[in-house]
Amino acid sequence: MSDARSERTRLRRGAARAVYDERMLDVLDAGIVAHVGVSTPEGPIVLPMAYGRDDEHVFLHGAVANALLAHAADADVCVTVTIVDGLVMARTPFHNSMNYRSVVVRGRAEVLAGPEKVAALRIIVDHVVANWDTSRPPTELEIRKTAVLRVPLTEMSGKVRTGGPVDEPDDLAGPHWAGTVPLAAAWAAPAPSPDLPGPIAVPPAIAALEGRPAHDTR
Amino acid sequence: MSDARSERTRLRRGAARAVYDERMLDVLDAGIVAHVGVSTPEGPIVLPMAYGRDDEHVFLHGAVANALLAHAADADVCVTVTIVDGLVMARTPFHNSMNYRSVVVRGRAEVLAGPEKVAALRIIVDHVVANWDTSRPPTELEIRKTAVLRVPLTEMSGKVRTGGPVDEPDDLAGPHWAGTVPLAAAWAAPAPSPDLPGPIAVPPAIAALEGRPAHDTR
Repeated sequence: MSDARSERTRLRRGAARAVYDERMLDVLDAGIVAHVGVSTPEGPIVLPMAYGRDDEHVFLHGAVANALLAHAADADVCVTVTIVDGLVMARTPFHNSMNYRSVVVRGRAEVLAGPEKVAALRIIVDHVVANWDTSRPPTELEIRKTAVLRVPLTEMSGKVRTGGPVDEPDDLAGPHWAGTVPLAAAWAAPAPSPDLPGPIAVPPAIAALEGRPAHDTR
Repeated sequence: MSDARSERTRLRRGAARAVYDERMLDVLDAGIVAHVGVSTPEGPIVLPMAYGRDDEHVFLHGAVANALLAHAADADVCVTVTIVDGLVMARTPFHNSMNYRSVVVRGRAEVLAGPEKVAALRIIVDHVVANWDTSRPPTELEIRKTAVLRVPLTEMSGKVRTGGPVDEPDDLAGPHWAGTVPLAAAWAAPAPSPDLPGPIAVPPAIAALEGRPAHDTR
């Protein structure tokens, strides 16, 4: 717990870990894309990426030619997942906020190969909706063309804001409205690709998305 | 066009600028939070932040004590805004994708002061819904406690994906389903804060959010 890396996150594995880790894992489960940051000689880059997780790592993937993943390999990265749940409108802009859930994972990204790589790919593919088993399995070539990285969940911090605005006591009796505006995100009906050769049933896991909140913990 | 900085983005100001810039500004207008990346001696950090923009800059703000903003001041940053519009489910995981709109702004963040700072604060506050004029004006102290940075929009790249999956020709006649699952995000009804002293009308701009898509270009 005394190395420099562990100083970088506010919430660390320790006494409160069980509670905090569980909530942070829930946020990772509820998110759809991560924003992945790397440092380059020409400044930081942040790009949105699909991801997945197990109990120990968050996984990222992309084309082997992907420039951000090339920078990330064996380097320090930051993987941030944010879900916006609504606007918090206070009496005064200084106290405006948003309700949100966010997790920040910092660590060294390790390139995966072999069975670990394929297992991680399945986790990423199945993150939002499990369809690995209902789609055509990837070929060796497709797997070779894909880079897969993992980042340990050992340095992870989370922040969750809920509830209404917190205004100055002097403003409470004033004439200004205050409240929240929830953001409701839900999956719409699956739309079949026009190039399907005929009627093919929607896989049950995909069909089950319709009408469901997009950011539940799955 | 020949300096090193301009090499960092694929889409640059030039012949195609009018078209591309317009679409990228639309994405900035449609987003709610930006993911802001900075490089630190201990690795990159990426955090979600509210933002706003005018025709020349993207604006960020936070508490003066905010560690990320302290790193960002007079340093290279990356400001990324992403809107996920849906899942793209292909016949095989290798061709899975998402429909999304994303803009990446890279550049040096400059700390604002004086009237420019206040003007930028108004732009950030009014970004999602214009309520600066219907709330209690910020005090001098509140403005002093807030750090405001701007990043020029000169290095900006954008990516928009729409439509269905693009599968291998050999897979098209196969038995696997393919299609999209749109993500529908809309504002719910404003919820008044329980500490309002009595019935206060919801400001028209906030009331107008109800039922509206959360990611239109406003």
